Amino acid sequence: MKDNLQAAPASRSVLASLPLPHGKRTRLWRLLYGHGPRNGTLLVLPLDQGLEHGPTDFFPHPPAVDPAYQFALAEAGGFSAIALGIGLAEKYMAGHCGRVPLILKLNGKTNIPSDAEATSPLFASVEDAVRLGADAVGYTMYVGSPRQHDEFRQFEQVRRDCERYGMPLVLWSYPRGSAINARGGTNTLYAQDYAARVALELGADIVKLHEPNDSVANVPPPYDKLQEDAAARCARVVRSAGRTMVLFSGGEKNDDDEAVLRKVEFYMQSGASGVMFGRNMWLRPFDQAVALTRRVHDIMARYPR
Amino acid sequence: MKDNLQAAPASRSVLASLPLPHGKRTRLWRLLYGHGPRNGTLLVLPLDQGLEHGPTDFFPHPPAVDPAYQFALAEAGGFSAIALGIGLAEKYMAGHCGRVPLILKLNGKTNIPSDAEATSPLFASVEDAVRLGADAVGYTMYVGSPRQHDEFRQFEQVRRDCERYGMPLVLWSYPRGSAINARGGTNTLYAQDYAARVALELGADIVKLHEPNDSVANVPPPYDKLQEDAAARCARVVRSAGRTMVLFSGGEKNDDDEAVLRKVEFYMQSGASGVMFGRNMWLRPFDQAVALTRRVHDIMARYPR
Amino acid sequence: MKDNLQAAPASRSVLASLPLPHGKRTRLWRLLYGHGPRNGTLLVLPLDQGLEHGPTDFFPHPPAVDPAYQFALAEAGGFSAIALGIGLAEKYMAGHCGRVPLILKLNGKTNIPSDAEATSPLFASVEDAVRLGADAVGYTMYVGSPRQHDEFRQFEQVRRDCERYGMPLVLWSYPRGSAINARGGTNTLYAQDYAARVALELGADIVKLHEPNDSVANVPPPYDKLQEDAAARCARVVRSAGRTMVLFSGGEKNDDDEAVLRKVEFYMQSGASGVMFGRNMWLRPFDQAVALTRRVHDIMARYPR
Amino acid sequence: MKDNLQAAPASRSVLASLPLPHGKRTRLWRLLYGHGPRNGTLLVLPLDQGLEHGPTDFFPHPPAVDPAYQFALAEAGGFSAIALGIGLAEKYMAGHCGRVPLILKLNGKTNIPSDAEATSPLFASVEDAVRLGADAVGYTMYVGSPRQHDEFRQFEQVRRDCERYGMPLVLWSYPRGSAINARGGTNTLYAQDYAARVALELGADIVKLHEPNDSVANVPPPYDKLQEDAAARCARVVRSAGRTMVLFSGGEKNDDDEAVLRKVEFYMQSGASGVMFGRNMWLRPFDQAVALTRRVHDIMARYPR
Amino acid sequence: MKDNLQAAPASRSVLASLPLPHGKRTRLWRLLYGHGPRNGTLLVLPLDQGLEHGPTDFFPHPPAVDPAYQFALAEAGGFSAIALGIGLAEKYMAGHCGRVPLILKLNGKTNIPSDAEATSPLFASVEDAVRLGADAVGYTMYVGSPRQHDEFRQFEQVRRDCERYGMPLVLWSYPRGSAINARGGTNTLYAQDYAARVALELGADIVKLHEPNDSVANVPPPYDKLQEDAAARCARVVRSAGRTMVLFSGGEKNDDDEAVLRKVEFYMQSGASGVMFGRNMWLRPFDQAVALTRRVHDIMARYPR
Repeated sequence: MKDNLQAAPASRSVLASLPLPHGKRTRLWRLLYGHGPRNGTLLVLPLDQGLEHGPTDFFPHPPAVDPAYQFALAEAGGFSAIALGIGLAEKYMAGHCGRVPLILKLNGKTNIPSDAEATSPLFASVEDAVRLGADAVGYTMYVGSPRQHDEFRQFEQVRRDCERYGMPLVLWSYPRGSAINARGGTNTLYAQDYAARVALELGADIVKLHEPNDSVANVPPPYDKLQEDAAARCARVVRSAGRTMVLFSGGEKNDDDEAVLRKVEFYMQSGASGVMFGRNMWLRPFDQAVALTRRVHDIMARYPR
Repeated sequence: MKDNLQAAPASRSVLASLPLPHGKRTRLWRLLYGHGPRNGTLLVLPLDQGLEHGPTDFFPHPPAVDPAYQFALAEAGGFSAIALGIGLAEKYMAGHCGRVPLILKLNGKTNIPSDAEATSPLFASVEDAVRLGADAVGYTMYVGSPRQHDEFRQFEQVRRDCERYGMPLVLWSYPRGSAINARGGTNTLYAQDYAARVALELGADIVKLHEPNDSVANVPPPYDKLQEDAAARCARVVRSAGRTMVLFSGGEKNDDDEAVLRKVEFYMQSGASGVMFGRNMWLRPFDQAVALTRRVHDIMARYPR
Repeated sequence: MKDNLQAAPASRSVLASLPLPHGKRTRLWRLLYGHGPRNGTLLVLPLDQGLEHGPTDFFPHPPAVDPAYQFALAEAGGFSAIALGIGLAEKYMAGHCGRVPLILKLNGKTNIPSDAEATSPLFASVEDAVRLGADAVGYTMYVGSPRQHDEFRQFEQVRRDCERYGMPLVLWSYPRGSAINARGGTNTLYAQDYAARVALELGADIVKLHEPNDSVANVPPPYDKLQEDAAARCARVVRSAGRTMVLFSGGEKNDDDEAVLRKVEFYMQSGASGVMFGRNMWLRPFDQAVALTRRVHDIMARYPR
Repeated sequence: MKDNLQAAPASRSVLASLPLPHGKRTRLWRLLYGHGPRNGTLLVLPLDQGLEHGPTDFFPHPPAVDPAYQFALAEAGGFSAIALGIGLAEKYMAGHCGRVPLILKLNGKTNIPSDAEATSPLFASVEDAVRLGADAVGYTMYVGSPRQHDEFRQFEQVRRDCERYGMPLVLWSYPRGSAINARGGTNTLYAQDYAARVALELGADIVKLHEPNDSVANVPPPYDKLQEDAAARCARVVRSAGRTMVLFSGGEKNDDDEAVLRKVEFYMQSGASGVMFGRNMWLRPFDQAVALTRRVHDIMARYPR
Repeated sequence: MKDNLQAAPASRSVLASLPLPHGKRTRLWRLLYGHGPRNGTLLVLPLDQGLEHGPTDFFPHPPAVDPAYQFALAEAGGFSAIALGIGLAEKYMAGHCGRVPLILKLNGKTNIPSDAEATSPLFASVEDAVRLGADAVGYTMYVGSPRQHDEFRQFEQVRRDCERYGMPLVLWSYPRGSAINARGGTNTLYAQDYAARVALELGADIVKLHEPNDSVANVPPPYDKLQEDAAARCARVVRSAGRTMVLFSGGEKNDDDEAVLRKVEFYMQSGASGVMFGRNMWLRPFDQAVALTRRVHDIMARYPR
């Protein structure tokens, strides 16, 4: 009988069954039931591309260079949270406090130096998140980087402070660096499946992943022989993440609204707890973005956790 | 007369003769006499393969990807302890508290980057172990790695906290890195014998080792001339570990139950204090794994320490 | 409507709308309205060239080697602040306390070793700034350096202390190192635009930038195709800096006073909050420098923020 | 007259003339007059070879692999102290407390990775030494290693704690690494003489050195032209160590008892404060080792300090 | 008028005009007026050559290997201070306390490893200096070394502690490493002039420099075109050091007394605050050294500061 065990959808089990400290339970409740779809799912608007990629990412829709744009969209679109760094939070959140939960991203980097030994340094702390009234912190880990020892140690510092303050921890679990490139790249099923498990074992509450692709070139066995369709691949990484809730990334902008919505439906069917859509939202004209968000809400409403 | 001194079996001498602080004595008693075989021996179920090797290790028996599987097996099989990291402990231990002792593994890494300069970063602390009610902490040291200075310094931090909290320290003493490869590899008698002594000199209470093989290619003298059988090799490393208790690793899965049981008998005869069997247990169907465990208990019952 | 959002001039919005802690508000007020043009703009006299470039920079006007020269000029010229390091502040500020605000530069380096992996170590602290009565601290970050992780972590230390003491933070945001050189160099629009955004995302109150040039050789897309004039380039980086106030650097000395004044006018038109002129001021004979400063004041008076 | 100054034998001057803190004076007294020869000289039994060289060193006399052997020998032979690490002290010292002073070795390493950039990491602390009732700590410094900056900084940490707790500091001052190899190797007069002076300048109370050899190949001037006999060479390094007491190492095992005893006589004549004999003692049958020790005592009795 | 500003001799301005904390003023007074020439100048006897160069430096005059020799000379010769490390201070200062001020050197290194990336690690602290009753600390910085970031950060630690305890800071400002070698070497006017300014900007109270030579090979402009005589070169670096007092190094031993005295006269004429003479003093027979010192006093008496 035990051999038939299936991983239950993560978010339900979290609030229902885990002995969470009060602070973490309170903050997770606000994210899962107090804002956004309010049914245990998560719709998050990230804004760290200006740091991670440079202002380049705003060129397709120039108003997006003003962070007030994303704050307005997060509120108008009923997002579960906006995820960004200390500079943007301190200078643009004033009019939105209490109306849009904040996921304070604690580390980051520019993409100017080589990613061969990628590492993402802290530039804010869990105490900043507490001070700003955030409901979670975000942390990027470059899984499999030759500098993963630095990444782990720095993560440990953050995890310990999250424990101290009852702060949920959202892990951007990103395979990165020369070694993962030699094993097929960052978005293969092998890489994303490993990244999901790392998030679980290291103690993340929520993990942001990318949809695994079907590339098997240079991928280690047994993944190189797996022939799973997109649905099975997504379900696999959700299962590997166990009781860590999975958010799939929206990735680069797709102009086809219907394709975006199919992605959302598809991710939710795989057992994910939600989606993190940045450029696919804030690179659209404001009213179109709000309208698209409403349709995303309609889909997510059908997948309570 | 002094020249005939023999190392006494370690576990007996530990509780009988060492001036252990109360906390360490209490926790060691729970591991040695309160759970598992309850006769001074140890049967430990490890679950760090998802982090160390990736979800790959679960492919032969898919239910094993759900950590609830291992927790259920640890309880049903009467293991002395389950050994895993902070993420798994926090999210899956709730129903098993008090029934299965926890060895909290404090460090780890993925196997994506090269092992040439292997190092295993901390991602949890001894204080986490205290908070979670663990009865020991686990620490992996890559003996002989070109970065062993980082490994030693980090270990010192853990050892000092173990001293402070009366927490037993289980050392995964693993020869690893380019230099040991140049001297014959990680599982030779030379390498395992050195690893055993390092564990003793650095102050581990329990050490996890691998059964030394009979390879002498590239091995330094006088090991390259030794012609000892498997029993003598195991007895040698147990002797080198002195009053640090030795657990031998079960290693990769072996489908032949009788072969597995012969290994257990053989390790116990060598003077070891027990075995740490992961994949050889949790990659079997649940009921078969429980049944096999019962037979392991029968063997260990004949080797009280 | 939201799509028409324009970044408001930064300095006005800062004191008017941001929930600044009292200490930071008080100090910013002194810089913006208590000294210098007193209309929300900033005219800063920097003196860190002796450390960054060596005494070489003083050769064109030998009296400038004596820091008393710059202190006298800062006071006579009505500068908003003088920006320099701890050694100069402690030994030369005595007669000017209260009359010229101090921006204490906390880090720096010589230009003797290679800039390929540029990093700028701290040699003073925010607490030193508090003790000396400074109204801001200055910090140099080498954006995109292969060592940016060290730069970010050190910056975080400074930012946190600024938060603790209510100390404004002026970021010298300088693209530097082998990777940015491979992408077209340090003063391209690409590099300066990225540097502006980094300052905003990391939480600087004020950023010092260089006027972006029109070079597109080796510059990444879409910048390589942009054909913007100097005015548009400056306005773009000011927009990317958002609510972080921009100071443009005066750069190397220009003997043509009228050209210098045209630059000032031009920078203010672009939306910048001010200028930081060192060599273009203190390499002139004293009376000429004071006279030129008066004309700069006249220009800045027409651009209240 | 001042030009005729001779360094007085170190140990006498230490207790007689130095303003030692009470704790350090008490512990040094126990080592110099409370145990061993009790005349200001030191006869120390080291046991760190299992860590530094591996169990290999015990092969010539297998009972020596059990640390109880060395503890028994240290007591039966009337050694001034036994020098070993935290793991051995905690697990084997119980029956010998108070009867054999402990020098707790705080750092060490395996010899598996290359020694080109040798460094010896801490794995215990001065506080451990205090807790265990040790009368001194031992610290190995690799003089002239390319990583000597790490070595110095770590040493400083230990020295400061020794100051705090009144703990004598015994320095294993070992020239090591690629740079010293390029200058003739680790045991030349040049290398040992420099190592002696480093111990003095850095503040060691006692220094362990090797007898300098007569090799001048690749040795820097003026050492390459010196033609001193063994006695003069030893006297020179003792003089360079000044008021830091010198212990000469017994080195590898010599089966010729008379040769060993001639070495002891010779070292004591050179002005050294004693000897540190490990393998030359504990690789002999127990009764022979005790008998040899008695003869060493007879020699040392003739060289009171 | 401001354009005619001249740097006033540093020592006079320091005590007369700087708002020094009481502790620093008291200690500087003892060095400048309580000992040595007692007229605001400084005559310092350094003894760190045993560590920095090895015992080699004592070979020309063997009694100098005993630090008691230098202590006796410092007292008999009426030096302003003796400058040495913690080991020498603790073991040899007892008979001289209060009679010869101590400058405790906090960092140092051997010259065995390559100087290409020179760095000088701390091996004592400002607190040690306070405990030993020192009147200043000495710190060596390798200006322009590829590791200057480590040097700066470590210096900052020392400077901060000096601030806390009112301890004067003497900087050995030494251009060193591969990059300065590529720019003409360590003793050029370019290198010494830069080193002087670094000392001022970083906050040293006193800087030790070498007399700049007239070599222009590989030296950067405009130094490569300067044609200044030795007097002008010295005056230039004194001017670049501003209110940081300059001590010129005596360098290697010169057997010609008159030449040594001409150097002293020459340095004092250049505006320096004094000289630091080690080997040129303690490599002479004691009485000759004392006699030479008296003549140095006679010269310095003519240059009160």
